[in-house]
Amino acid sequence: MPFSFKLTKTDRGSRARTGLMTTPHGTVNTPVFMPVGTQATVKTMDPASLKDIGAEIILSNTYHLYLRPGHELVRRMGGLHRFMSWDRPVLTDSGGFQVFSHSQLRKITEDGVRFQSHHDGSYHFFTPESATAVQEALGADIIMCFDECAPYPSTYEYFENSMEMTSRWAKRCRDAKTNPEQALFGIIQGGMHRDLRARSAAALVDIGFEGYAIGGLSVGETKNLMYEVVDYTTGFMPEDKPRYLMGVGTPEDLVEGVMMGVDMFDCVMPTRNARTGTLFTSTGKLNIRNLQYAEDERPVDPDCGCYTCRNFSRAYLRHLYHSGEILAMRLNTLHNLYYYLDLMRGIRAAINEDRYTEFRAGFYNKREVS
Amino acid sequence: MPFSFKLTKTDRGSRARTGLMTTPHGTVNTPVFMPVGTQATVKTMDPASLKDIGAEIILSNTYHLYLRPGHELVRRMGGLHRFMSWDRPVLTDSGGFQVFSHSQLRKITEDGVRFQSHHDGSYHFFTPESATAVQEALGADIIMCFDECAPYPSTYEYFENSMEMTSRWAKRCRDAKTNPEQALFGIIQGGMHRDLRARSAAALVDIGFEGYAIGGLSVGETKNLMYEVVDYTTGFMPEDKPRYLMGVGTPEDLVEGVMMGVDMFDCVMPTRNARTGTLFTSTGKLNIRNLQYAEDERPVDPDCGCYTCRNFSRAYLRHLYHSGEILAMRLNTLHNLYYYLDLMRGIRAAINEDRYTEFRAGFYNKREVS
Repeated sequence: MPFSFKLTKTDRGSRARTGLMTTPHGTVNTPVFMPVGTQATVKTMDPASLKDIGAEIILSNTYHLYLRPGHELVRRMGGLHRFMSWDRPVLTDSGGFQVFSHSQLRKITEDGVRFQSHHDGSYHFFTPESATAVQEALGADIIMCFDECAPYPSTYEYFENSMEMTSRWAKRCRDAKTNPEQALFGIIQGGMHRDLRARSAAALVDIGFEGYAIGGLSVGETKNLMYEVVDYTTGFMPEDKPRYLMGVGTPEDLVEGVMMGVDMFDCVMPTRNARTGTLFTSTGKLNIRNLQYAEDERPVDPDCGCYTCRNFSRAYLRHLYHSGEILAMRLNTLHNLYYYLDLMRGIRAAINEDRYTEFRAGFYNKREVS
Repeated sequence: MPFSFKLTKTDRGSRARTGLMTTPHGTVNTPVFMPVGTQATVKTMDPASLKDIGAEIILSNTYHLYLRPGHELVRRMGGLHRFMSWDRPVLTDSGGFQVFSHSQLRKITEDGVRFQSHHDGSYHFFTPESATAVQEALGADIIMCFDECAPYPSTYEYFENSMEMTSRWAKRCRDAKTNPEQALFGIIQGGMHRDLRARSAAALVDIGFEGYAIGGLSVGETKNLMYEVVDYTTGFMPEDKPRYLMGVGTPEDLVEGVMMGVDMFDCVMPTRNARTGTLFTSTGKLNIRNLQYAEDERPVDPDCGCYTCRNFSRAYLRHLYHSGEILAMRLNTLHNLYYYLDLMRGIRAAINEDRYTEFRAGFYNKREVS
């Protein structure tokens, strides 16, 4: 089954939209949140549990898998799906963001990026061509162009040059790609500058991709500025292709992004926060480590239908956390991911019923009154 | 439902036997292996997963729960079953073994044991009466007498005095117990001395308990000596009550113990070894960390029906382990516990079909040829 995207509904009162994204490993309902499985596993979650909570697609990190266990090993083991026993769609990022955020030394040239492994300090070189080849070895359904995620803040000139190089790299990725089963998405850069975002989007559309992503956000800018950039950038993106806001974000960010026409999100927040005891609920966040929960018999979120909330009290989860039990990480992760995926189910239902504006108002209202 | 035990079958060619142990939370098929849930959780396993792999009863540790979160908190949260959301039987040990193995300073008198917490060095005092009260607060189906687990090696005189005090403590536990829903087991001590074990068993039978345990083994003695002690001690134990060999052991120990008429086992080995990468298989142990498994596409044990073996390669499990992923701990634990529980299923079936001797021979044969 080749890649395709079909818009199914646009909300009457906003730019929010639902769609069906078809991949070789099945169809995904958008707007979608993709749990992050950095090292070929969504931390603490086995594939059966991911399916139980309704995950339709996950993201995995090219940079990490390239370094360990190595993309060629994954290829020899039958590709990423078989290696991790996940038969639904996978998206791999290009490694661009990780090269800039994880590696210590890096040198960027027109050719590519030289960087040091965060494991052992060994030197590596990523080019648009090699990043594409690594992603072909991993075998995800959707792969991403290798881009430069420019540091924020930077000068206008830096953002402009970086964006233009990212466009040239995108063309090289498009040309390097050999596997027709995999969809390739371009990444729009340009910092917080409307004209650069417009030029970046136009250049990528000119090359032609199966989908388009907004990169370079959630890098230290204010929320309002991020929303502003998303708002105008989605306006530069084709209506008939999936729009992916990379590395974002909080539940509020998802609600806002959808309103501005975003179809796809990924973020480590639900999984990472779970491991430090921060749990998302319909009325806001709570930290299960706090003393106030020591004898609290209520579930984390009385409105939540997840396994954790159906079976365990806050008191028990707090006990597990303070006892250093692995089960704490697992039950917390399961809850947070369920919360995110359930939020997206609610979002899709609201769009399909032309009541996204009311849904959004209700989402915020519930947080304020509690 | 009060506690009861019914022998259902004794093997024609050995002392191996099957039975049904009925408790307020359901019936357990014996011989049984009890996964250890020290801190009110079998590490990495949620209750649904424990049921999936066929766990019928679990053990939890009084010493640990007394210190954290505290037995009174557990009582206020509705007892251990409700606290950890496990609706099948639970056995709690008395804390005796942990007081001697975990706490740093301890002082033993006829009255009880003064010890320091391994968490914060605070001082505590356990008596037969208080250990029984703590176990009543926790609310397990089966509770254990507070005993002294004498260090090995010790003098004959030490073992004799300790065993006699343990008998007096057992009587105090019997008298202190107030909840008729809970069964109380006595613990036979006496080191590696046949006459002391005989006297200990007789003294406990004279008091009268719902079941009898063999304590003080697997403390550094040789395998042959342990088997010798089990062999004669089961001979001193009533036929019509469950016989529990505490803290034992390897798969071989289970096979041998059953042959000598043991009905119940518990051990941290399957769970603890899982977390360091040691996996049990029908042909012996393997350590998943080893380089030889880096590209091994086979499951851990091709004969195993567990979720881990049905879905993941040794290569993937090795990758998870070396990547420090929590999922490694979970998948390894799930496999090891399944192996133990499946071994017990095979043992019970063999006894019921009068072929335990052949089963045992086959068990060892499979290990030798591989």
